[in-house]
Amino acid sequence: MKLDKLIKRYRIQNSKGFKLDEINPGDTAGLESEFREEAKNLLQRSITELAELQDKLYAHNEWSLLLVFQAMDAAGKDSTIKQVMSGINPQGCEVHSFKAPTSEELDHDFMWRSMRRLPERGRIGIFNRSYYEEVLVVRVHPTLLDKQQLPTKLVTRRIWDERCDDLRHFEDYLGRNGTMIRKFFLHVSKDEQKRRFYERLNNPEKNWKFSAADIAERQHWDDYMHAYEQAIRATATPQAPWFVVPADNKWFTRLVVIGAIIDALKDMKLSYPTLAATEREALTTARQQLDTET
Amino acid sequence: MKLDKLIKRYRIQNSKGFKLDEINPGDTAGLESEFREEAKNLLQRSITELAELQDKLYAHNEWSLLLVFQAMDAAGKDSTIKQVMSGINPQGCEVHSFKAPTSEELDHDFMWRSMRRLPERGRIGIFNRSYYEEVLVVRVHPTLLDKQQLPTKLVTRRIWDERCDDLRHFEDYLGRNGTMIRKFFLHVSKDEQKRRFYERLNNPEKNWKFSAADIAERQHWDDYMHAYEQAIRATATPQAPWFVVPADNKWFTRLVVIGAIIDALKDMKLSYPTLAATEREALTTARQQLDTET
Repeated sequence: MKLDKLIKRYRIQNSKGFKLDEINPGDTAGLESEFREEAKNLLQRSITELAELQDKLYAHNEWSLLLVFQAMDAAGKDSTIKQVMSGINPQGCEVHSFKAPTSEELDHDFMWRSMRRLPERGRIGIFNRSYYEEVLVVRVHPTLLDKQQLPTKLVTRRIWDERCDDLRHFEDYLGRNGTMIRKFFLHVSKDEQKRRFYERLNNPEKNWKFSAADIAERQHWDDYMHAYEQAIRATATPQAPWFVVPADNKWFTRLVVIGAIIDALKDMKLSYPTLAATEREALTTARQQLDTET
Repeated sequence: MKLDKLIKRYRIQNSKGFKLDEINPGDTAGLESEFREEAKNLLQRSITELAELQDKLYAHNEWSLLLVFQAMDAAGKDSTIKQVMSGINPQGCEVHSFKAPTSEELDHDFMWRSMRRLPERGRIGIFNRSYYEEVLVVRVHPTLLDKQQLPTKLVTRRIWDERCDDLRHFEDYLGRNGTMIRKFFLHVSKDEQKRRFYERLNNPEKNWKFSAADIAERQHWDDYMHAYEQAIRATATPQAPWFVVPADNKWFTRLVVIGAIIDALKDMKLSYPTLAATEREALTTARQQLDTET
């Protein structure tokens, strides 16, 4: 079972004609449920591998890695982040959850709040929801645009295409500056979402996760799927690919996500910095100073 | 004397073939030195007009205006900003001078420090030097790139073209979000710079402005002119034009700059917000409450 092979079928890049229904939310790449024990071990080994790569990323200090997570409610964003990143050194990783924009944020261009939270070199940044909401929830509920106080003449029918162009350009720019980007759409089915909502309603320990607004959003399912499809088509590039991850089976979701992250870090060809001759000499001097200390 | 006509010949947009030597630093559009008294009055009237427009910009609260100033040393950036913006309400205007990047800034993509300082809706933002330094001083002194800790494979011969593309895309994006951009290159001649350096050296009150580094930079004059020309060619657009402003005569520089700013604000078709019927009723109620106060 090789993760780097497994993830290939879910990686979308250069794909103008991409259709969301090409990927089945219930897909497990032919792996049966008996595989689940092995999956657990594989995930555990991968978590260890990821921690080692992160350590190198930090020491190397040239690249950063931005992971963008988008999904419908209850698709498992939070639990995936929690599980997959459980071996990570928090000093080199920051997670930002983007909620409804504040009034200060609305007073700026829509990328403003994201730009400020981009990961430094050597670090992993995780966006739990992201600037993609600007072509997802805002597209599905165009009245949200009014809050952005845009000059009227700029709000045309082309606005969603323009925003997708801007996002693609923006990610090109980040790539050229050493921020590698991987984007995940956790693709859950409408039936599975229903099942998970019932679970939140029925299990007292999960009640807090439930919000009546989630049910309202569910009524816009088809609009969301259309918006996701458009966004993925317009912004999937070889430098910043989307992974459309089947999300009806959490054990499978996690394997694909961690596989894609490890793959990205390996692409960076990370290495621990080696010292120049003069720097090595300095180590020798330091050692001597310690030796001769009285 | 109409400022809106005067500025046209210095406005560069869509100009792939633009050559810097098309514009003479000593140019005064045929206005003789006898015009200088009239110029003073015109500047004063324009400062009043600008203040009125700024007030509307603030009330309207949809557009913002970003003014970018770039120039060789002693071209008069600081004094132009000081003079031209002297009537402005500081509550609606912020000036940022970008110096050599800090280590925190170097740890991010190069736009990071600029993005954070973009003007809010309703405001004027002034960048005294800007992200253009990334294709100017860094291009002239490529060793500065090393400090940015970019992954080696990203530093190719195409990097300056890529950066210019990124800047143009970035400004497109800002334009679509209601930030109008005007960029000024204060075009001083090498002779006039020399004269102004002598002034700084000879006049004790101006000594503080002098830095030995300025003389060193002067040795790279031709490289800088080449870098400016390339940057202007690649990033002059109808939405975010450059103004190449003759800068050997300060009185003339100021007229062109203020003319271009007023022109931009007029393009926004600003108006004070009008109240809806319900809001007007609220005013009536408020008036009554004040009237009946005991």
